[in-house]
Amino acid sequence: MTDRTPKKTDLMSEAERDVYHAEKMKKKKAARDKILATKTEERGLLIVHTGKGKGKSTAAFGMVFRAIGHGFNVGVVQFVKGKWGTGERDVLEKFPDQVTIMAMGEGFTWDVADRQRDLAAARAAWETAKAMIADPRYRMVLLDELNICLRYDYLPIEEVVETLRNKPRDTHVIVTGRNAKDELIEIADLVTEMTEIKHPFRAGVRAQAGIEF
Amino acid sequence: MTDRTPKKTDLMSEAERDVYHAEKMKKKKAARDKILATKTEERGLLIVHTGKGKGKSTAAFGMVFRAIGHGFNVGVVQFVKGKWGTGERDVLEKFPDQVTIMAMGEGFTWDVADRQRDLAAARAAWETAKAMIADPRYRMVLLDELNICLRYDYLPIEEVVETLRNKPRDTHVIVTGRNAKDELIEIADLVTEMTEIKHPFRAGVRAQAGIEF
Repeated sequence: MTDRTPKKTDLMSEAERDVYHAEKMKKKKAARDKILATKTEERGLLIVHTGKGKGKSTAAFGMVFRAIGHGFNVGVVQFVKGKWGTGERDVLEKFPDQVTIMAMGEGFTWDVADRQRDLAAARAAWETAKAMIADPRYRMVLLDELNICLRYDYLPIEEVVETLRNKPRDTHVIVTGRNAKDELIEIADLVTEMTEIKHPFRAGVRAQAGIEF
Repeated sequence: MTDRTPKKTDLMSEAERDVYHAEKMKKKKAARDKILATKTEERGLLIVHTGKGKGKSTAAFGMVFRAIGHGFNVGVVQFVKGKWGTGERDVLEKFPDQVTIMAMGEGFTWDVADRQRDLAAARAAWETAKAMIADPRYRMVLLDELNICLRYDYLPIEEVVETLRNKPRDTHVIVTGRNAKDELIEIADLVTEMTEIKHPFRAGVRAQAGIEF
């Protein structure tokens, strides 16, 4: 056990702690209710997951599954072709009526260094993404790893910003990838940064099924 | 468009950029291959998602779906009963052969301030969690919002650390919730902090299906 500063509750009896806790929780609930009462608008959000930590795409996939659970149709565009297969994909394909996945087969990859091919693939993926965003049947569109295409200037940020700013009102769009551009953060509703605090690669553990892919 | 510092590539011709890019990618790939070659161990990880941002549970649910896609059995213990239903749950229930969900019906909630009831619920949830972790049929166990029970000292951190430290070698355990205790971070293999950069509540947008729940 690590050392820690004693807390107020350490000196209380069990009965005193119960009362203290009840009061504290009531205050928290009142504060939360007050905040929620002011939140009345409901509309599609532009969501960005960025940062160097893990969980950017995984949290986005979690949102996709949640949307499926609500009966929404979801479009997924994968801008980067992973060298590893993904377990998510196998599960997503069990919901063919609700999910459309476009994996850019020749998309950006670390393994090939052909910029012209990558540029063409990014353009093709983006055209697909634009069509999905414009289609009101999709309530959610995931643009997985779009940020990496923007970072390498494979797509003009102005065009992407213009499309996202004019997306249909009820459509949620999720963009993932490290190094999100300022222009994108500027127009986003919800931006979360995933920060790596500890990573098992440092301890010599390799990428494994269910965790990395 | 925001101002930015000119990049080296701004002054290059398209053909020069192609060559520059190819060289850069080759270097990146070589560096990555070198790192990956040293990562040989494969074992179950203790993973912690913490921080005040969104995506902690959602990324964990994403990992659960990924594990399902790989054919693993997964156990999920929800330590906090949400006042909102979750879309994830509806989708998870479509895989009854692979997923066991234990939602602690009377678990910790902001709405009730009965500490003794919460203590009993946390204990019951933890006993379920311990049994799942010990059961080698589960390759992944998600302890959703365990951190909040630890933060309120509903469970002794020493006991939790002892159990997690002695988990079966191949089992992945994921713990979510803000304010992860130092003792937990200490023994974890992978810790990611989700940081909120921008949140739509600030703009008066309320919680909605597919995003918050």
